[in-house]
Amino acid sequence: MKTIYLAGPEVFLANPKEIGEAKKALCKKYGFIGLFPLDKDIKAQPSRFETAMAISQGNEALIMRSDIVVANLTPFRGPSADAGTIYELGMGRALNLMIAGYSNCQTPYFDRVWQVYGQGEQLSTDSREIRDSDGNSIENFGLMDNLMLEGGIQASSQVFVTQQVEATQRFTDLTAFEAVLKQLQDL
Amino acid sequence: MKTIYLAGPEVFLANPKEIGEAKKALCKKYGFIGLFPLDKDIKAQPSRFETAMAISQGNEALIMRSDIVVANLTPFRGPSADAGTIYELGMGRALNLMIAGYSNCQTPYFDRVWQVYGQGEQLSTDSREIRDSDGNSIENFGLMDNLMLEGGIQASSQVFVTQQVEATQRFTDLTAFEAVLKQLQDL
Repeated sequence: MKTIYLAGPEVFLANPKEIGEAKKALCKKYGFIGLFPLDKDIKAQPSRFETAMAISQGNEALIMRSDIVVANLTPFRGPSADAGTIYELGMGRALNLMIAGYSNCQTPYFDRVWQVYGQGEQLSTDSREIRDSDGNSIENFGLMDNLMLEGGIQASSQVFVTQQVEATQRFTDLTAFEAVLKQLQDL
Repeated sequence: MKTIYLAGPEVFLANPKEIGEAKKALCKKYGFIGLFPLDKDIKAQPSRFETAMAISQGNEALIMRSDIVVANLTPFRGPSADAGTIYELGMGRALNLMIAGYSNCQTPYFDRVWQVYGQGEQLSTDSREIRDSDGNSIENFGLMDNLMLEGGIQASSQVFVTQQVEATQRFTDLTAFEAVLKQLQDL
């Protein structure tokens, strides 16, 4: 059975263990072993900094013994996915693991950035010169996030599922996650 | 001479080649070869999607032939660093490259998130239970971003420089970047 590292911002939810168990149960249903970040045993450390470093090392170790990374790339506190999840996706790619992802938001990255950071009247979406309020150009490739994320997934499993989920369920709905598992099972 | 992949959101600036050349010149000054994302030669592709994938593959190839990744982790469109930069930092870590970073903002991650997504009255910063407006807990380890980023850097070069730069120069000031190069030179 292949092992899936469950990357995502679920660790920040009020009930992280509960959703971790739900994701692992779905993994089992499709013939995978799910590894959730909280599965590791982190000893209490003398300082916040040392605790953070221990968690980081624990997560890196879990990724290194996985075969697959499935990343929850739902936008988190801004137009992009959770920073830790993105880092772990990049690690999975460089380790030549199979990487896959999903998002519970179907609004393209360009539009999400524009909603928050756009300035003035929207130009043609074909323009390469559309800039945010800091003067930085806004990536406009029709993708769901920065091209490195979908680029890595496309070069690997090509499994990336999006689904529009209402805000209250955005961080807990597992429909797209299950669709990813189903596709991985068929590969 | 060691090769440094220059990860960062500079590619989105109005003058990306100019700042890329400036970063490469500083690399040379400290005895490194700088590789900027725009150094690759991406052929025009039939679609935006294919162009994005070609850029992604090109960047991954540049990282794989580098010895070091220096990531500009200045907050970009939200409380965290640029998504592509984070992915590339994770790749560098998994490839066992030396990874280092800098940020032109010295406000800790917790405070930046709280400013934008906090709700109600701020509790003691020691609390582990402080949540954003979506109900997600806010990491509070005194770090500058998600712990995976600084965790990877600490486990690698331990070179992470922060500096407070005013907003108008935040994406172009290279003082902290140069400080990173100086520290890497001494390793």
